[in-house]
Amino acid sequence: MEENEIIELAKTILSKNFDFLVKGIGDDAAVIRLEDNYLLLTSDMMVKETHIPSILSPSEIAFRVFTANVSDIVAMGGKPISFLISLGFKKVSREFLESFYLGLREASNLYNCPVVGGDTVRAETLILSGFCLGLTEKPIYREGRVGDKIYVTGNLGRVFSSLYIYYNFKDKIKEFEESYPEMFKKLRKPVARVDMLKDKELFTGATDISDGLGREINYFKNFQIYSEKIFKLIPKDVLDFCEEFNLNPLEVALNSGEEFELIITSKYKIKKAVEIGEIIERGRYLDDKPFKGRGYIHKFY
Amino acid sequence: MEENEIIELAKTILSKNFDFLVKGIGDDAAVIRLEDNYLLLTSDMMVKETHIPSILSPSEIAFRVFTANVSDIVAMGGKPISFLISLGFKKVSREFLESFYLGLREASNLYNCPVVGGDTVRAETLILSGFCLGLTEKPIYREGRVGDKIYVTGNLGRVFSSLYIYYNFKDKIKEFEESYPEMFKKLRKPVARVDMLKDKELFTGATDISDGLGREINYFKNFQIYSEKIFKLIPKDVLDFCEEFNLNPLEVALNSGEEFELIITSKYKIKKAVEIGEIIERGRYLDDKPFKGRGYIHKFY
Repeated sequence: MEENEIIELAKTILSKNFDFLVKGIGDDAAVIRLEDNYLLLTSDMMVKETHIPSILSPSEIAFRVFTANVSDIVAMGGKPISFLISLGFKKVSREFLESFYLGLREASNLYNCPVVGGDTVRAETLILSGFCLGLTEKPIYREGRVGDKIYVTGNLGRVFSSLYIYYNFKDKIKEFEESYPEMFKKLRKPVARVDMLKDKELFTGATDISDGLGREINYFKNFQIYSEKIFKLIPKDVLDFCEEFNLNPLEVALNSGEEFELIITSKYKIKKAVEIGEIIERGRYLDDKPFKGRGYIHKFY
Repeated sequence: MEENEIIELAKTILSKNFDFLVKGIGDDAAVIRLEDNYLLLTSDMMVKETHIPSILSPSEIAFRVFTANVSDIVAMGGKPISFLISLGFKKVSREFLESFYLGLREASNLYNCPVVGGDTVRAETLILSGFCLGLTEKPIYREGRVGDKIYVTGNLGRVFSSLYIYYNFKDKIKEFEESYPEMFKKLRKPVARVDMLKDKELFTGATDISDGLGREINYFKNFQIYSEKIFKLIPKDVLDFCEEFNLNPLEVALNSGEEFELIITSKYKIKKAVEIGEIIERGRYLDDKPFKGRGYIHKFY
């Protein structure tokens, strides 16, 4: 079963009305109402073989799982207020745990969000399961109004490119990392865009890029985007890298996952973000041609 | 490293003051303040080999992880208001998932708590990571006042006894389950004591029994308990079972984990609970002799 089929099955069996439940399974985070506030809830699990490149240090792994969870809260227009982390491992040294907790502390300081709990269990492999609670007066969903512009923050392509090296040239990573430091930095230590929250009043919709722009853009249902504009999101090192390895930079940008950048819709100009198109009445287009979603699909057999 | 050393290390590195953070790492759940309410946050992870007897159905596994999380919220005097579940698995059939989600639905209805989200990932083994958000006007901690009586809800020993069969007589489980149905029922489908919340105004302290009474009682620091009184918590089937297998029923009751009963301190009489002793000025005693903690210790090498 594919992930979306699993989610549909879960929704079918588990959906039930609760007066305080605003949004259950199906967005970046769930939304519940508590008096005048909205609480946002999200969880993100990572397993070593599937999600964690072996070149990451314990501190980088910790920072990454914190970021992945905070990013979902930010994508809903909330500030993170509590993080919990459950850890599974076979053997663990004090050195590993110290480095891991220092990575959590660094993220905790950066996101101004306390680590309040978790669980530790024995497992055959390294498992990280994060949970984040967020708070907002107004949740932002994966939607936009016709005529809204579509924006993407930061840059795209570095995570895909560094993973390309990781999977194909494992023995030469050190050299590549010296040639392309910024590329590997985004793989090792991606940062959730909490800085964008100050402009959130301008957003009509948002989501974060964990599975690639080409896949995540489809949440907005009807849109028109342009490769010329998407190109502005691709930094020089990725363009150089694509030339060196004969890759199509647009494909790289569309398929680069775990970037933790935001896709934002707004009728206003959004600073620190690049406009790549707009929400339209009907259809999905890239350069005026029908757009077929791309991006990483999690498949379970 | 043992679990308590890991928790101490986490506290040392991660503790930081936040004005809304009332209680971080170290109780059944974390506590944060939001206006006039207290939010409770807990997570509980289970991995197949370590935590899940193979005789459990997917529905029972789901019910159990929901219960473990809700139990932590109840132990803090809160009602559960949202549950999230992250799942890791290698291969999964629609039948497994349907049964699993039906188990979640049953628990969701029983605890009146919606399943609002989660995550699914590919992993080498079955992993369940639950998170529960709770709400209370007054959190209850693992503490009690000198002179308070100590109470335990329900009964103790059935989980230990059924696991004893599971580990030692795997090929005869069916027969034993016919002889001792209530014993296996508590292993398969333990229920969190949400029913006790109606009397929570009377509680001065509480915790739930996940690692055995002999271990959990130590959270209350100074106490006097009596085996004659603890015996009242041991049901007839467990006494019969102990006789059949030449086990000491008191040891069984003290070491039986994942019972999800509550230890409660109060100066008032608590209905549906058995008084087993009291909080004293100084020292830990069982039948007037120094008490050494027992119970399951999670050890990581």
